[in-house]
Amino acid sequence: MTKKASSRLKKKSSKADNVRTVLLSNYSKDVLSFFQKNKIQVGDAITLTEGIKIISGNLLPQTELGDSDTIVLKQKNGYNVGVKFSSSMKVRKEGEKVQIENFPTITQKQKKGLPPISLIATGGTIASRIDYLTGGVVMASSPEEIFVNLPELFDEVSFKKIHQLYQMGSEDISHKQWIEIAKTVAKDLNSGLNGTVIMHGTDMMGYTAAALSFMLEDLNKPVVMAGGQRSSDRGSFDGALNLISAARIAGKGDFAHVMVSMHESSDDNTCLLSPGTNVRKMHTSRRDAFKTINAHPIARIDYDGTVTEISPNIRRRSEGEVTANIKYEPKIALTKIYPGSDPEILDWYVDKGVKGVILEGTGLGHVPTFPPEEEKERSWIPAIERAIDQGMFVGMTSQCLYGRTNKFVYRALRATFQRGVTYLEDMLPETALVKLGWVLGQQKSEEETKKMMTSNLRGEIHSKSYYFKE
Amino acid sequence: MTKKASSRLKKKSSKADNVRTVLLSNYSKDVLSFFQKNKIQVGDAITLTEGIKIISGNLLPQTELGDSDTIVLKQKNGYNVGVKFSSSMKVRKEGEKVQIENFPTITQKQKKGLPPISLIATGGTIASRIDYLTGGVVMASSPEEIFVNLPELFDEVSFKKIHQLYQMGSEDISHKQWIEIAKTVAKDLNSGLNGTVIMHGTDMMGYTAAALSFMLEDLNKPVVMAGGQRSSDRGSFDGALNLISAARIAGKGDFAHVMVSMHESSDDNTCLLSPGTNVRKMHTSRRDAFKTINAHPIARIDYDGTVTEISPNIRRRSEGEVTANIKYEPKIALTKIYPGSDPEILDWYVDKGVKGVILEGTGLGHVPTFPPEEEKERSWIPAIERAIDQGMFVGMTSQCLYGRTNKFVYRALRATFQRGVTYLEDMLPETALVKLGWVLGQQKSEEETKKMMTSNLRGEIHSKSYYFKE
Repeated sequence: MTKKASSRLKKKSSKADNVRTVLLSNYSKDVLSFFQKNKIQVGDAITLTEGIKIISGNLLPQTELGDSDTIVLKQKNGYNVGVKFSSSMKVRKEGEKVQIENFPTITQKQKKGLPPISLIATGGTIASRIDYLTGGVVMASSPEEIFVNLPELFDEVSFKKIHQLYQMGSEDISHKQWIEIAKTVAKDLNSGLNGTVIMHGTDMMGYTAAALSFMLEDLNKPVVMAGGQRSSDRGSFDGALNLISAARIAGKGDFAHVMVSMHESSDDNTCLLSPGTNVRKMHTSRRDAFKTINAHPIARIDYDGTVTEISPNIRRRSEGEVTANIKYEPKIALTKIYPGSDPEILDWYVDKGVKGVILEGTGLGHVPTFPPEEEKERSWIPAIERAIDQGMFVGMTSQCLYGRTNKFVYRALRATFQRGVTYLEDMLPETALVKLGWVLGQQKSEEETKKMMTSNLRGEIHSKSYYFKE
Repeated sequence: MTKKASSRLKKKSSKADNVRTVLLSNYSKDVLSFFQKNKIQVGDAITLTEGIKIISGNLLPQTELGDSDTIVLKQKNGYNVGVKFSSSMKVRKEGEKVQIENFPTITQKQKKGLPPISLIATGGTIASRIDYLTGGVVMASSPEEIFVNLPELFDEVSFKKIHQLYQMGSEDISHKQWIEIAKTVAKDLNSGLNGTVIMHGTDMMGYTAAALSFMLEDLNKPVVMAGGQRSSDRGSFDGALNLISAARIAGKGDFAHVMVSMHESSDDNTCLLSPGTNVRKMHTSRRDAFKTINAHPIARIDYDGTVTEISPNIRRRSEGEVTANIKYEPKIALTKIYPGSDPEILDWYVDKGVKGVILEGTGLGHVPTFPPEEEKERSWIPAIERAIDQGMFVGMTSQCLYGRTNKFVYRALRATFQRGVTYLEDMLPETALVKLGWVLGQQKSEEETKKMMTSNLRGEIHSKSYYFKE
């Protein structure tokens, strides 16, 4: 819990009993009747005893995904603990009660005259809190549960629409969810709102950002994704700044891009807005995990809301309507090249009806090409020829991530290119995969597909590569 | 050609005719007899005419892999051109001859009293030059062809053994080559040499560095790999500094590691020595493409040879012998997780007899785990269970590259871990793959394999992760 939120808790006056009942609603019937019998309410200082075991603390609500038979207490040392309920348990009230407020509804908080935006919640750590039973992180039950710690948000924008589309970790999000999100964004923006904020898990945020970039045709307003690397009840919660920055840009930013708003550094001072087709999670846990690759960030947003533009290629807000072009071919694959990588995987994909494969080659875009004669089964060239003969699209990117593929410099590159592999310039492998699904979804000719894949449609390919050192 | 080399060319006096003949030896019989008939020698300023086509320049040697019927000329503007020979061609000498020396043998150059080391050449850009017919890059025919531009090398070390093991692009190098290199290194080091330098292509240098790290048991001397991002006849040739730095460390450096010596920045001033299990090519073409990930570089080497140690975990030279433990299981695979990634690939690998798979998961080590019920075939959990039931080792790394996996924080991580997936801490995916092949090669029990994979054997796992900002 942030300092601000905890000081707000102390200032609040006591609330009606029915609010407390709502707070307890995630406990099981047995636990609830135990509380009612003993006249225990949320916030009460209680001591639970069972045989020789004794534990004391203030009673907290249980979260929606928590174990409903586990009683959560905030102890004096500040830590929360979970205690499994048992019918032989005894309870007594003693010590000072703390006030715990229910989550006010967002409509109660809205102020007038602020830029109207919409919010799409999909889950992820930004919408999570620690489960004090397991010590793990669980999804919050609603955006309200997050916003309770973010009163500043309601001084910046007015949330005209809130969609709780999913409560999913982003590792589980795929093209069907992208389609739903794209349709929702287009509807909201075309209804006259200034922009949209999307709360999303960080793991696959880059993939979703790329997918929305392609699906939202003629985008004329900001679509800003925000995630969190730390859960919302922790002091190091980064989602707050990421979300507020996203909301500010959605409300007033003059950028018609799908963007990702995440911390620039480990300090809680600035966010960078990365273009949706050039962004990648480059650290498992750091708050500044998201990097703009082969491009410039769109802008930097200070904690006080100051926006500094960085990219020389900014698309501005404009009139007109955005279209959700949601045609998508999911039968695609990405495969990484490494010493001993088995080229027959391409045959397997052909057999499975996969329409296109992105290779994550080495360096400038290599595959094993000319191994020694006695190891010739290691060459990818015959399998590439077979796959392309069968009508599969084979695109080349680099596992270096930074930089640009090249189809000419080395003999092995030329050999691969001459077999029909499409070299995808400086596109990220993940963006290339998502773009391929979208381009194949348009069902154009083979030639037109190749042309689209090597053309810059949404800022994913650059005539000159940037190397922005963050 | 570097400035130094070109000024050396001008200073040299004329050489005997037989040297020139050697230089021309890569031309075809027709071209050679055409030159002999017209008394043309390497370096002569000539004008070739064929019909109305005229081209002038100084005659250059042809490289071993070049087209033997293509005459290479250096033009006045500094560019080299290739002209296809035709029997109807005419030639006349006119203008100033330039002196082009033959490649002196390395033994001719050796000085006494310098640290004795060995050199293993495997190919790669560091051993390449431009082919002036195609504009592409081709392999040089011998280390001498590289060393001609690097007289400084012979003031630093004495090359007691030179092994031209391969002339391969590193994309074609795999475990059989690693084994040969490891055996050669062990033999050289145990014969009393101070260290070994390995010239290697950059694409898969990280994989080879990891493989040698595991194969060379009880390593007691420096093994330093050097590559080039630019070919050796270009002014921006980075291989020179990388190679000289590598030779200096092999000769005198007090480091008993397999290391990679590559440019620290785009300037030609310093190299960083990266530990072989923590290094990755992170740019397709920049000279400072190699980054040390989740660890500190061992040391920085200035162009003047000054060595500054950086890592707090340096293993020193010691007495004793190094052993080449070359047992290796090649039936392994690496597969990357992405939205819509097909978990049945694990079944395919099981069917193929693959013994272990490294997953490149998202974030802290996620796979699609709890997709919506109607898309449940997207979950990787059932396929993981089947693979592990069949005795396959399944290891988890992160496609973030930087940072550490975690098997506890989220419910989905715990679910994956509980199915038997081994979380591989902060190991790079590529290092984890190579390590898996080596660990499986030792043919230990399932439990012992898991223990070895999660133990730090060669600096590949760190109890605390480093974030060295280069």
